[in-house]
Amino acid sequence: MKQGILRLLAFAMLVLCVPMGRAGAADLRGEDLRGTGDLGIIVERASGAVQIIDTTNKTVLARVDGLGDLSHASAVFSRDGRYAFIFGRDGGLTKLDLLTAAVVGRTQQAGNSIGGAISEDGRLIAVSNYEPGGVRVFTSDGLEPVADIPTDGKVVGLVDAPGNRFVFSLYDSGEIWIADFSQPGAHSVQRFVDIGLQPYDALVTAEGRYYIAGLFGEDGLVLLDLWHPEEGPRRILDGYGRGEEALPVYKMPHLEGWARAGELFFLPAVGRHELLVLESGSWREKGRIALHGQPVFAVANPDGRHVWINFAHPRNDVVQIVDVESLEVVHTLRPGKAVLHMAFTPRGEQLWMSVRDEDRVDVYDTRSLERLGSLAMDKPSGIFLAARAHRIGL
Amino acid sequence: MKQGILRLLAFAMLVLCVPMGRAGAADLRGEDLRGTGDLGIIVERASGAVQIIDTTNKTVLARVDGLGDLSHASAVFSRDGRYAFIFGRDGGLTKLDLLTAAVVGRTQQAGNSIGGAISEDGRLIAVSNYEPGGVRVFTSDGLEPVADIPTDGKVVGLVDAPGNRFVFSLYDSGEIWIADFSQPGAHSVQRFVDIGLQPYDALVTAEGRYYIAGLFGEDGLVLLDLWHPEEGPRRILDGYGRGEEALPVYKMPHLEGWARAGELFFLPAVGRHELLVLESGSWREKGRIALHGQPVFAVANPDGRHVWINFAHPRNDVVQIVDVESLEVVHTLRPGKAVLHMAFTPRGEQLWMSVRDEDRVDVYDTRSLERLGSLAMDKPSGIFLAARAHRIGL
Repeated sequence: MKQGILRLLAFAMLVLCVPMGRAGAADLRGEDLRGTGDLGIIVERASGAVQIIDTTNKTVLARVDGLGDLSHASAVFSRDGRYAFIFGRDGGLTKLDLLTAAVVGRTQQAGNSIGGAISEDGRLIAVSNYEPGGVRVFTSDGLEPVADIPTDGKVVGLVDAPGNRFVFSLYDSGEIWIADFSQPGAHSVQRFVDIGLQPYDALVTAEGRYYIAGLFGEDGLVLLDLWHPEEGPRRILDGYGRGEEALPVYKMPHLEGWARAGELFFLPAVGRHELLVLESGSWREKGRIALHGQPVFAVANPDGRHVWINFAHPRNDVVQIVDVESLEVVHTLRPGKAVLHMAFTPRGEQLWMSVRDEDRVDVYDTRSLERLGSLAMDKPSGIFLAARAHRIGL
Repeated sequence: MKQGILRLLAFAMLVLCVPMGRAGAADLRGEDLRGTGDLGIIVERASGAVQIIDTTNKTVLARVDGLGDLSHASAVFSRDGRYAFIFGRDGGLTKLDLLTAAVVGRTQQAGNSIGGAISEDGRLIAVSNYEPGGVRVFTSDGLEPVADIPTDGKVVGLVDAPGNRFVFSLYDSGEIWIADFSQPGAHSVQRFVDIGLQPYDALVTAEGRYYIAGLFGEDGLVLLDLWHPEEGPRRILDGYGRGEEALPVYKMPHLEGWARAGELFFLPAVGRHELLVLESGSWREKGRIALHGQPVFAVANPDGRHVWINFAHPRNDVVQIVDVESLEVVHTLRPGKAVLHMAFTPRGEQLWMSVRDEDRVDVYDTRSLERLGSLAMDKPSGIFLAARAHRIGL
């Protein structure tokens, strides 16, 4: 870095002090330019900071702090991949320029938020709130308020869907809402009530067709076909845990970290040491896989061959890898205390993993399971790569 | 870090250059920076040039010429999205910096080439050649030669697959080869012979598991499961046109422009006015859809709802849109003479279309079918968006 600064100073002297003036401009410019496709951010939850990373060189490019309470924070990316929109637990919405590491927009949009989404066209950012509930929508450009959709109680499982729609669930009243922003300057909301008790999170399938919400208040999931909302939500995997005694739930699993591989979905079971295997199309249970602990995230390698799973406290020092063909656990890793999050690079050759209590982020070669590198970070949690910009529902 | 550099630059300006005063340096830098996720290139086939486009503003950013014979050219992108690797028909391989519009590398690697691929880790570029045949592999960094894999005759259907593998077919001898570059500094090749007559193009499924080659010399396709290459290739859709009189083939269809939507694949039939519908898993024919002409490209919207199809001369002024649920043609557009290529933005809200003989590229809103804009170009053909960087097999 020092060499870089010296070079820049040398260029500055050439560019600014030599009468011919701009001779070095192109070179100066060339050094600062870079692509955004291999960038990402990692949340340091305790210190309210994010680290900007580069997955090609497996390095940290910059650290940005002052982002408020980032426990349970998540992020989406602008369609050009340059900006991250970071949703803080305290309701703060921050727009971060990954190329300059500058906060270029920030609004304290609510008292307590749980996540957000970016519209298909990249123009709108939606945030789901716990306190005071509701969804607020902003322009991605200047974070100007666009719409305020009040609800009675907590909003969870907010995702984007094709046609500039946002879909979300109401935890307290058991509803699913579709907010349609396809018409400029106006929006409409479609409500589905009595969908089941306490939806706690949701996913949308990769093509944006099926919205699936998990229920905390009863055994089962709810499926809404967004191609046919007129058919309404229907229950799937009903009573998947019925008749068995539920374990205490140490940490709510995440469905946003759901996994699909081929025709199968892999979903963490609430409170059970199990991964549920769901067949797409028939939406029937295809099997269950016994696990080391209560699963939190189950993420599929983009190559569809393996699903990596982390676990709730106190068994969160372990990661298991399930083989999609055999439906068996084929590897058990012990990366260290408190593995909180995992993210694959978009073509699946690397997996990045936050090991919070070891203050470390590890990078694995997913083929050899070799640890390619390790970055020191302060209580790392969520890992969000800029390639999410190009995916529906992420 | 960048802020530190800026401070140093500011300091240098104050201390060293006050009399000359160039206040614009920071602005110059800020203005030049941009994300790469919404960039792409469009080939001007007749003039050996490409236009660099921005899909957010639907504009041309720069034009770069001197790239040789670009008929049938294609491109892949570096994992950071900054560089396009352009494969010319004349064997030229060009590395283009999308941010500066500068050719930063170029090699005349063969006499006649047909396409290429980039390895999973982004380090290797493979090019498939007609003359003298074979596959040549280069570093993506400096286009230094890495490997030369000779073949007897034309190589077609070259794709990348997980594990830094390249898979391709031999048109003349009817073979499929897997070249494995997972070990640094060495590679191995696995050959499958007698796979069928004249494989003319191939695709790999989105997760990189199934390699499917079309046969020109007989009715049918060949499937190779890359998770189980030991099982060897097997024939599917055998005799899909048997007993019917083949039409003269005006233009070979492309399988790289294949479409998958849900559990269905949509493949252009060789020489027939039909789209073949193939069910994944069973690999059986699910149906055929009658079309306006001989299909060339069938591309699925990432939302999985529609497949857009263009046609061979002389019926190439039309584009048809097939609805995936009903398997029916639901729209017939007449954009103009010689629609050569189409590309969806990664989340499917826009479709870009080259209308060669009208010297025009059109941008459609895929929901309303409204034409959002039109860009004047000189005989445009292939459209390649930088988001391909994040996809397996593209």
